[in-house]
Amino acid sequence: MHYPEPLAKLISELEKLPGVGPKTAQRLAFHIMRAPREDAVRLSEAIAEVRDRVGYCERCFNFSDKPICDICSDPRRDQSIICVVEEARDVVAIEKTGEFHGLYHVLQGAISPIDNVGPEEIRLSELVERLGDGTVTEIVVATNPNVEGEATALYLARLIKPLEITITRIASGLPVGGDLEYADEVTLGRALSGRRKL
Amino acid sequence: MHYPEPLAKLISELEKLPGVGPKTAQRLAFHIMRAPREDAVRLSEAIAEVRDRVGYCERCFNFSDKPICDICSDPRRDQSIICVVEEARDVVAIEKTGEFHGLYHVLQGAISPIDNVGPEEIRLSELVERLGDGTVTEIVVATNPNVEGEATALYLARLIKPLEITITRIASGLPVGGDLEYADEVTLGRALSGRRKL
Repeated sequence: MHYPEPLAKLISELEKLPGVGPKTAQRLAFHIMRAPREDAVRLSEAIAEVRDRVGYCERCFNFSDKPICDICSDPRRDQSIICVVEEARDVVAIEKTGEFHGLYHVLQGAISPIDNVGPEEIRLSELVERLGDGTVTEIVVATNPNVEGEATALYLARLIKPLEITITRIASGLPVGGDLEYADEVTLGRALSGRRKL
Repeated sequence: MHYPEPLAKLISELEKLPGVGPKTAQRLAFHIMRAPREDAVRLSEAIAEVRDRVGYCERCFNFSDKPICDICSDPRRDQSIICVVEEARDVVAIEKTGEFHGLYHVLQGAISPIDNVGPEEIRLSELVERLGDGTVTEIVVATNPNVEGEATALYLARLIKPLEITITRIASGLPVGGDLEYADEVTLGRALSGRRKL
């Protein structure tokens, strides 16, 4: 099918987005053509602006539109505990729980030899630097419970050990609302070994 | 959760797209933040450009970046037959079949009293105008086989009757690869009444 060239270009750009195939890209493009013109202009500007105005917090590497992000500069947050995550979206997920009131450190990835990502490619040395002044007493490692996340957690544990800081790992186990019958063996094994007194 | 303001704005703009909820909008926005900067710039420009450079064909009201679209101005297309569709995306769908070699007319909607769309709100009078010079001998009505599409088809049939032009409707029936057991009664009834000699 022959689209007008700017429309074909828009469809091919939209297809680069995650989870957007040719059909969805076409639907989105046709929506953009039919929606009020201001909506298209605002979307276009928002995309351009986000890259110009949002960068990374110099301390925790979360997304921020200031040199130091709102969480790092909030005096009410517990400065003695840092939660280490792989991606900025993980900060969003943890903030939503309302269970954590410390600071974050976003590694920007996880150790993955298969993808050529070693400890130097992620923000590990910057984390160690943050531990220098003795304020931090606990590191919660909240990397994903998969091969790369576990490898990163182990590496981190070894790295931090000499500093005599408590290092903890988020629990693995059955998801709330889950069903033993459908749990895989590894998860169920973790749930058993991580059992707690009632 | 508190996002940097430009990121929050992008997420809220993305949420306006069809089929994009808060989770998807966040995922897309985070992807745009992490993808190469040129990708974000190109996407932003493509959205802005599509509205500036693509409009509607003056003859058939399909999307076009020229006053008359490529299909209307292609001398190899059969000028005596017009396929009437509701939306530009329907043109794409029909072109993909490779079964139709005539021209199109995009109504830009269907008659729907419930949505306050009457015959004047869609491009019906423009279609009748195109029939004036006697070149067109058949109209294929390919509006959707739902209430609005059928109402539009019936209205169109009455409108065109005095002009002595053949008016046909695309067939309703079982989809290819479908199963009688799962077909609804209306579709199965249509498939029976529309049966053809083998």
